[in-house]
Amino acid sequence: MTASALAYHRDRREATLEQLLDVLRIPSVSTLPEHADDIRQAAEWIAAYAREIGLENVELIETERHPVVYADWLHAEGQPTVLVYGHYDVQPPDPLEEWETPPFEPTVREGKLFARGSSDDKGQVFAQLKAVEAYLKSEGSLPVNVKLCIEGEEEIGSQHLPDTLQAHHERFTADMCVISDSQMQAPDRPTIVYGLRGMVYGEIEVTGPSHDLHSGAYGGAVHNPMQAMCEILASLHDADGRVAIPGFYDDVRALGDDERAEVAETGVAESSVLSESGAPALWGEPDCRVAERLGARPTLEIHGIRGGFTGDGAKTVIPAKALAKVSMRLAAHQRADEIAELFQRHVESLAPETVHVRAHAFFKADPALVERDHPVMEAAAGAYQSSFGARPVFTLEGGTIPVVSTLQRQYEIPVVLMGFGLPDDRLHSPNEKFDLRQLERGVECAIHFLSNVASHHG
Amino acid sequence: MTASALAYHRDRREATLEQLLDVLRIPSVSTLPEHADDIRQAAEWIAAYAREIGLENVELIETERHPVVYADWLHAEGQPTVLVYGHYDVQPPDPLEEWETPPFEPTVREGKLFARGSSDDKGQVFAQLKAVEAYLKSEGSLPVNVKLCIEGEEEIGSQHLPDTLQAHHERFTADMCVISDSQMQAPDRPTIVYGLRGMVYGEIEVTGPSHDLHSGAYGGAVHNPMQAMCEILASLHDADGRVAIPGFYDDVRALGDDERAEVAETGVAESSVLSESGAPALWGEPDCRVAERLGARPTLEIHGIRGGFTGDGAKTVIPAKALAKVSMRLAAHQRADEIAELFQRHVESLAPETVHVRAHAFFKADPALVERDHPVMEAAAGAYQSSFGARPVFTLEGGTIPVVSTLQRQYEIPVVLMGFGLPDDRLHSPNEKFDLRQLERGVECAIHFLSNVASHHG
Repeated sequence: MTASALAYHRDRREATLEQLLDVLRIPSVSTLPEHADDIRQAAEWIAAYAREIGLENVELIETERHPVVYADWLHAEGQPTVLVYGHYDVQPPDPLEEWETPPFEPTVREGKLFARGSSDDKGQVFAQLKAVEAYLKSEGSLPVNVKLCIEGEEEIGSQHLPDTLQAHHERFTADMCVISDSQMQAPDRPTIVYGLRGMVYGEIEVTGPSHDLHSGAYGGAVHNPMQAMCEILASLHDADGRVAIPGFYDDVRALGDDERAEVAETGVAESSVLSESGAPALWGEPDCRVAERLGARPTLEIHGIRGGFTGDGAKTVIPAKALAKVSMRLAAHQRADEIAELFQRHVESLAPETVHVRAHAFFKADPALVERDHPVMEAAAGAYQSSFGARPVFTLEGGTIPVVSTLQRQYEIPVVLMGFGLPDDRLHSPNEKFDLRQLERGVECAIHFLSNVASHHG
Repeated sequence: MTASALAYHRDRREATLEQLLDVLRIPSVSTLPEHADDIRQAAEWIAAYAREIGLENVELIETERHPVVYADWLHAEGQPTVLVYGHYDVQPPDPLEEWETPPFEPTVREGKLFARGSSDDKGQVFAQLKAVEAYLKSEGSLPVNVKLCIEGEEEIGSQHLPDTLQAHHERFTADMCVISDSQMQAPDRPTIVYGLRGMVYGEIEVTGPSHDLHSGAYGGAVHNPMQAMCEILASLHDADGRVAIPGFYDDVRALGDDERAEVAETGVAESSVLSESGAPALWGEPDCRVAERLGARPTLEIHGIRGGFTGDGAKTVIPAKALAKVSMRLAAHQRADEIAELFQRHVESLAPETVHVRAHAFFKADPALVERDHPVMEAAAGAYQSSFGARPVFTLEGGTIPVVSTLQRQYEIPVVLMGFGLPDDRLHSPNEKFDLRQLERGVECAIHFLSNVASHHG
């Protein structure tokens, strides 16, 4: 049945593209309230499409904010169930003026599809859906059972997904999950991500005087909260770039020699980190290679500091308050709740008596590490081999996809991060694109994957 | 002739107030280009008034931005010439919603005149002008020669004043200068400021990556410019709160034991710094009292840091760039040019190889220290005694009035800082006010001062 699904897919490339353009035209920006209608329209578009290709029990499951699209096909008796996760929401398109063509007017140039969401994640989830369509339309059945979980809050931290899964636990129960929301290292170098960093995002507030003060009248007599903030923030790393929060590294999973060597081999090259970032030099823990630092080591970043005067010209204010936005990326085995607690306790303990210091974390996601020797991984590896002509490399990635640890925690199932994007897709940036050859081969890969899952099971 | 000037003044309190209300209605905000016409209107108002009271050679001297009002009366043969300096420009009135009555609709409540500029400086300079009027209208002459220099750029750093004085050096030549643009400690505690701090205002820019980076993809591999900025800024003070720029304190004038004791006696009380600022504790160099730290010690303040993400919610950006606004208040004998150079050189020397660091200063004003045993000081002290019923205290102030060091440098004359404001006048803040009794007595004080200058000279 794989052959007829592949043939169906190959005969309908034009129609596939037209359909993807349709959903990319919907500006389903999850973080902006003015796009609430667009978000719903995108969810309904996915639901209508799922019905049209023959999926069943299609439903928009409401959450406190944006709905989750559910659908299933459960007639492959004796076969495992694959949960296909993806998201229909997108990042805001700003800065608009940097787009060569408008973000929500998808345009193909030189085989690449430019639009917000083309790669992250509408284009990639589309590859999975098209594989399901190819089977159902060509054969009337799927080699395995399939459930869809396509959410609308991924770009705002998948806030309501854990509760939704909890409330509908049975409905989403599956034997494995596949997610196409990541990148391959190159078109001939398929990549399966087996580890993702977690995150704790927080704020530090330093307050001193009850109101902004004139630095002539008070400078030298009171502790400037902006200065106290810098003193606190500067103390959060030691001279070698390690995070200086006591206990921070206690639970970090250490890599064995083999895995270290593999990470150095398959991870991102130091030269490309330098050239892609434009930074004058590399930085970080001196006893780890860059690929290891990015994939397997935790970090703490300062994103910005609000307060005082930052305009042009001169204003001599001692601000009453400074607020820093800070996040930590967590490595495998660290727990977000615990790191949030360590962070808060340590930062508040740094407060001199001359100011007040409060810290809190408002977003937490555990890191994820996927079992690499589960049969589903071989099913995925074989699918890549059949479609992209190469076996995938396994990598640890520095980013965070909260749903992975959520699924692992709530269902204890393996999660395959089967990415079809490429490193230069400019996710979250102007001129986001998705290579149409990646889309084509991605559909083929997803077709092979479902069939491999069935035969590995058999 | 003092008696008839005083009588003239006392008979015309209502008219004086009405006239002051007139000029306070002009929103002469120097920093905002949309108020350029208002600035000119205020300058013309002062010039018309000067003509009306009998001053001569009245002229608006143009600068690159806002004009300086010049006028004189030079018929007191054999007598010294007093230069009266003041400014007709005001600070912006924001935040408007915090004003009880609109900033440019002057309103009297309980003997206090509320309006932007009521104390800083239209009301105070008005006291000096009214004294001149009282003599000229009651006697037809003044006891000494008088020149006016009323500028329109004080609130934006008196940018063009040094060049104007240079270009018209002869015209502004005088034997002494009197400035009413400061505060008395209390209505029964007249205050002559004999020292003001200088200022160097600058920026520090830290750049790293060529564009904003995703902290998942790059966190741990490149030096976050916001973090590098905090590390640099935190290093600019030592643990005791001293500025840690090498050579920074080299030229600072040390106070002798007598002056230290006097500063502690006449300077601001520690309890009032605490209660007025609302800070949880005092802070600063441990071996100096607060009044000394504020008046006689230099400082470095961080006003704000631009860059990255400071909005609500979470954005995981490693900013390409961070820009800090920093200023230093200088104590007597420090030179602004030299401190600016030390600052720039030291900050740039702190740059690690992982980022680029640039520092520069764009505003510089030398500190000022006025000779206290010049006869003009006794003339001022006697005038305060006659009008406010008490001899003044002499204080060192932490603020900066750039014109004082400019006049000292260009004319080598004593400058009397004869303030009539009160500590709670809320300069630069909503609900700025000027106490009408301070205005009345201020005019009397200015009348006595001119006469005392003549008799001390005789």
